[in-house]
Amino acid sequence: MLNAFDAARDNAVETLPAPESVGRILAEPVTARCCSPHFHAAAMDGIAVLAETTFGAHESTPRTLAVGTEAFYVNTGHPLPEGTNAVIMIEHVQAPSENQVIIEAPAFPWQHVRKMGEDIVATEMLFPQNHRITPYCIGALLSAGAFEVCVRKAPEALIIPTGSELVDCGAIDSRNLKPGQVIESNSFVIGNLIKACGGAFERNAILSDDLDVLRRTVKQAAESNYDLILMIGGSSAGSADFTRQVIEDLGTVLIHGVAMMPGKPVVVGKVNHKPVIGLPGYPVSAIIAFEQLVRPLICRMLSQQEPERNRIPVNPARKIPSKLGTEEFVRVKLGRVGDQVVASPLPRGSGTITSLTQADGIIRISELIEGINAHETVEAELLKPLSEICNTVMVVGSHDNCLDVLADELHKQFPAQSLASNHVGSMGGLLALKRKVAHMAGCHLLDETDGAYNLSYVQKYLPGIPVKIVHLVRREQGLIVSPGNPRSIESIADLTRKEIRFINRQAGSGTRILLDYHLKQSGIDPQTINGYAFEEFTHMNVAVAVLSNAVDAGLGIYAAARALALDFIPVATEEYDLVIPRVHFDTPMMQNLLSVLQTASFQKRVQAMGGYHVDDMGKLKAEF
Amino acid sequence: MLNAFDAARDNAVETLPAPESVGRILAEPVTARCCSPHFHAAAMDGIAVLAETTFGAHESTPRTLAVGTEAFYVNTGHPLPEGTNAVIMIEHVQAPSENQVIIEAPAFPWQHVRKMGEDIVATEMLFPQNHRITPYCIGALLSAGAFEVCVRKAPEALIIPTGSELVDCGAIDSRNLKPGQVIESNSFVIGNLIKACGGAFERNAILSDDLDVLRRTVKQAAESNYDLILMIGGSSAGSADFTRQVIEDLGTVLIHGVAMMPGKPVVVGKVNHKPVIGLPGYPVSAIIAFEQLVRPLICRMLSQQEPERNRIPVNPARKIPSKLGTEEFVRVKLGRVGDQVVASPLPRGSGTITSLTQADGIIRISELIEGINAHETVEAELLKPLSEICNTVMVVGSHDNCLDVLADELHKQFPAQSLASNHVGSMGGLLALKRKVAHMAGCHLLDETDGAYNLSYVQKYLPGIPVKIVHLVRREQGLIVSPGNPRSIESIADLTRKEIRFINRQAGSGTRILLDYHLKQSGIDPQTINGYAFEEFTHMNVAVAVLSNAVDAGLGIYAAARALALDFIPVATEEYDLVIPRVHFDTPMMQNLLSVLQTASFQKRVQAMGGYHVDDMGKLKAEF
Repeated sequence: MLNAFDAARDNAVETLPAPESVGRILAEPVTARCCSPHFHAAAMDGIAVLAETTFGAHESTPRTLAVGTEAFYVNTGHPLPEGTNAVIMIEHVQAPSENQVIIEAPAFPWQHVRKMGEDIVATEMLFPQNHRITPYCIGALLSAGAFEVCVRKAPEALIIPTGSELVDCGAIDSRNLKPGQVIESNSFVIGNLIKACGGAFERNAILSDDLDVLRRTVKQAAESNYDLILMIGGSSAGSADFTRQVIEDLGTVLIHGVAMMPGKPVVVGKVNHKPVIGLPGYPVSAIIAFEQLVRPLICRMLSQQEPERNRIPVNPARKIPSKLGTEEFVRVKLGRVGDQVVASPLPRGSGTITSLTQADGIIRISELIEGINAHETVEAELLKPLSEICNTVMVVGSHDNCLDVLADELHKQFPAQSLASNHVGSMGGLLALKRKVAHMAGCHLLDETDGAYNLSYVQKYLPGIPVKIVHLVRREQGLIVSPGNPRSIESIADLTRKEIRFINRQAGSGTRILLDYHLKQSGIDPQTINGYAFEEFTHMNVAVAVLSNAVDAGLGIYAAARALALDFIPVATEEYDLVIPRVHFDTPMMQNLLSVLQTASFQKRVQAMGGYHVDDMGKLKAEF
Repeated sequence: MLNAFDAARDNAVETLPAPESVGRILAEPVTARCCSPHFHAAAMDGIAVLAETTFGAHESTPRTLAVGTEAFYVNTGHPLPEGTNAVIMIEHVQAPSENQVIIEAPAFPWQHVRKMGEDIVATEMLFPQNHRITPYCIGALLSAGAFEVCVRKAPEALIIPTGSELVDCGAIDSRNLKPGQVIESNSFVIGNLIKACGGAFERNAILSDDLDVLRRTVKQAAESNYDLILMIGGSSAGSADFTRQVIEDLGTVLIHGVAMMPGKPVVVGKVNHKPVIGLPGYPVSAIIAFEQLVRPLICRMLSQQEPERNRIPVNPARKIPSKLGTEEFVRVKLGRVGDQVVASPLPRGSGTITSLTQADGIIRISELIEGINAHETVEAELLKPLSEICNTVMVVGSHDNCLDVLADELHKQFPAQSLASNHVGSMGGLLALKRKVAHMAGCHLLDETDGAYNLSYVQKYLPGIPVKIVHLVRREQGLIVSPGNPRSIESIADLTRKEIRFINRQAGSGTRILLDYHLKQSGIDPQTINGYAFEEFTHMNVAVAVLSNAVDAGLGIYAAARALALDFIPVATEEYDLVIPRVHFDTPMMQNLLSVLQTASFQKRVQAMGGYHVDDMGKLKAEF
């Protein structure tokens, strides 16, 4: 594919002042215009002499030299006077005076002299072409008299966001979006990725799905100075997808569809010898397609290798199935737990931009295999430095908004550290500890027999694993309902009313166990609840389901209801604890995190969310 | 030291449009202002229905739905119409028409729907404070309605270059420098390093060594908006070194002198609560002192960790002695030879900026040890990606200007590849192959017995190592003399004249062997030559010694004489060959390099330098 565009760009160059050329690529080799130093320079404070005149000097036969003819006072950096070739340090000069000096040892030629050309010799090659200029290089360039450099021009892309559903962030209030409207963000993401690899971009106005307008715009762009044209959206084969058509009408389609996921529906074509590329509209698809197909092209225009990501061996926390015949790019969170780096897969949808922003790495699953087993060692490309990953506490388990605040406070109080949460429910958290894929589990598991939280579960599910249990927070659980409670829901019992649409939490979550406990207490058959079978994975998603009127009620924490200004019918106060294996408890990373729990700033922020009791926050509750 | 400045900067922040915030640091956490998607969206083209109305549909009991009340045509991305909660793919809709559709299977609730908040839920925390914004983040920010972000202001440094010897590159012609003048480059190097770690800089005009002026300038800067002040030069303890004095007069000196090399004479002080730092004037010293002391300070102002360099185990090609009590930063060239990464130390002077620009890595030698032995495994910090290092051919041996041109052509024809040369003379090259620290050796060793080049030496010094010898070039060696040959030097015999000052090449170099051969032929005693004992390491440095009138003559290649417009008295035509162990010969890296030798573009450039014969270039001369 790359070879199709070799003639596309006529190696455009520009000349820049050297100090402004950092990060640019030399279009031609740079040779030194002068030597550095460009004179023989004293490397010490002292006297400059012709070494030969000092031969034979000795303590027993000191030699007197006349200042101004045989010896010359010099400071470090001064040029050697004509006829001298050595410097004697001032400390070794006897009885220095204005007229004469005495020396008691000979100098050898060129001692304490920085010889002309010691660093750089005029005419020698400083840097070959295609060399990327670093800040250090500026020192060599200027010292060698190369005050200007000829560099490759940044390849210029026109980015055309397309889609009738798109709205411009400059033109709307995000709190006033209409259903069906989508905030256009891909152009800015792709534009910044282009800049990061040495290119430049302009952003076209958003175009609606109108074949004529699209064709006219691309035609004009292909006749302008752009080096490549990127259309975003409309690259698939739907009724409103015109990218392929536009390229076919104006030039040639080279590729339509690549066996990768996300990023499959990409179009690559050529119009007026220029690459025209149609990227998919889903954000992760657009990014993966860009990185796989467009970035190599830009690097090639700059005669550069693509920057390579570091790769390390990792172990998936759970099985990652994949489709034969398609290469998949799975975004993962990474954390070092014990002596392995654990990879937790993030949501795999191509519309989920947060799966990339939260990712520490990417695992590529070959099109030749059907996935990866848990604990199988595979390679991950790192999106962050390994040191950051090693400074990340991985908490797996129940979701609570406190964890977000904790992540923020931790990163504020200890900028080197991060907290990464993975929401798999309370039981999932304990199992993650058992499988040694997390540093701690957040859970709120009610023991029906004694009303206590977590202790019996830890004993039952983590036998033989020494742990400490630190109390995080007590919190209000209740029914989240629409503002004003239009369905007049008063208690769990109301969920059995036929017209009430309920949304449940996933099996194994503490909230699900809490619900089941209350249903049992009240003698309610779960099957009589409309929606018992439909599951969400976080409190916030339950709240959104209510907000969007998809359902009438769900069980969740007060903080989630309040965040979205929903009503709340209290059901229970429960204890949310952190279960920490002792092997992780005493690490500096964990101790820093635990220290945050004791800070007033953190506790105040948690209380401000509402529905939380912080009295015992950070206290050791039990150890096994 | 860092703690001394905690109050210095009052966490200055600024608000930026999100798309322009890449690389910046969030000053506060960002929460989502809207959900993404912010409505329930069809994830497929088809019909939207209320799942419950489809229950019971089957091939045997198809169900007819009225379009507009029970079923609604939707495309991917469309909002679900009020009262619907599932999408049936158009492919599964029977007999679609304007008024009604028939379905033969039930839909389950929320099938083929991207639920509101699937990616981002309004009010949830997107990024914690101190998070560095990446291009990916822009997608999440905009999708969440966070069109503006509050980021930390870039810490602003004033850089004051000081020194009466300095001249401004904007104000001079580099070919017209006067002795004693030094082109000021440090401020631009340090300024660009500041930018690279997230700061900003202004450059003060060059100040001469005038205590009053320096004091006035620093006082004014400390009362302005700068966050830190860097003085470059004058940080030592000489008679014209005023940095310490300036800080003492205006505030407090915290540190003067650090046990590291280069970079020792650094001054750290505080004026008006602001850090004022005096960096040494030698370029490598200035950079190391900046990286060790100033960069951490800037990172701390931004609440960031310092970017960590990758570290790998390497093996020094030769012993690197070091001084007890001083931590030394040795710049090294790195190359992967066989299964080890070999580190060749570069010149260690603190004035040699090219020792940093040519470096692939830095080895830190602790103040507690006296150096590192050859082949001892130590850690190197990488200045370049490992992949670049692994794509570098290391040629060790005799110096020839062709190698520079070869490096350039190689990097042009194969941008992924580099050539690194290490000039240790022809014999040194063969010994490097024997010690397995190079991929090939460049040599021109004359066998006195048969007049042939290299073959007998390879057999003698590399027994048991299978090699191929590829011919590079034949070249003219001769006496390099001042323009016009003022001393009337005609031949080697003239070197014995008393008034002639000669400069020799180091023992083991092919040129030294050539000289000794000719002296022997002519029956000349080397001790009769004035300067026989003084050695230079490259042809170019010999030529510079003649150019600077430090000597009258030296033996070297025609290309070096011509580069500096010197006169040349031919002595011999010799063969310069590349000796390549077979184990490296067939690697793609080596084959690419050898293919360059056969290209017209390379041969033309070599010929253009003068004194070269390229007839047999690239031909296999012998194999053992």
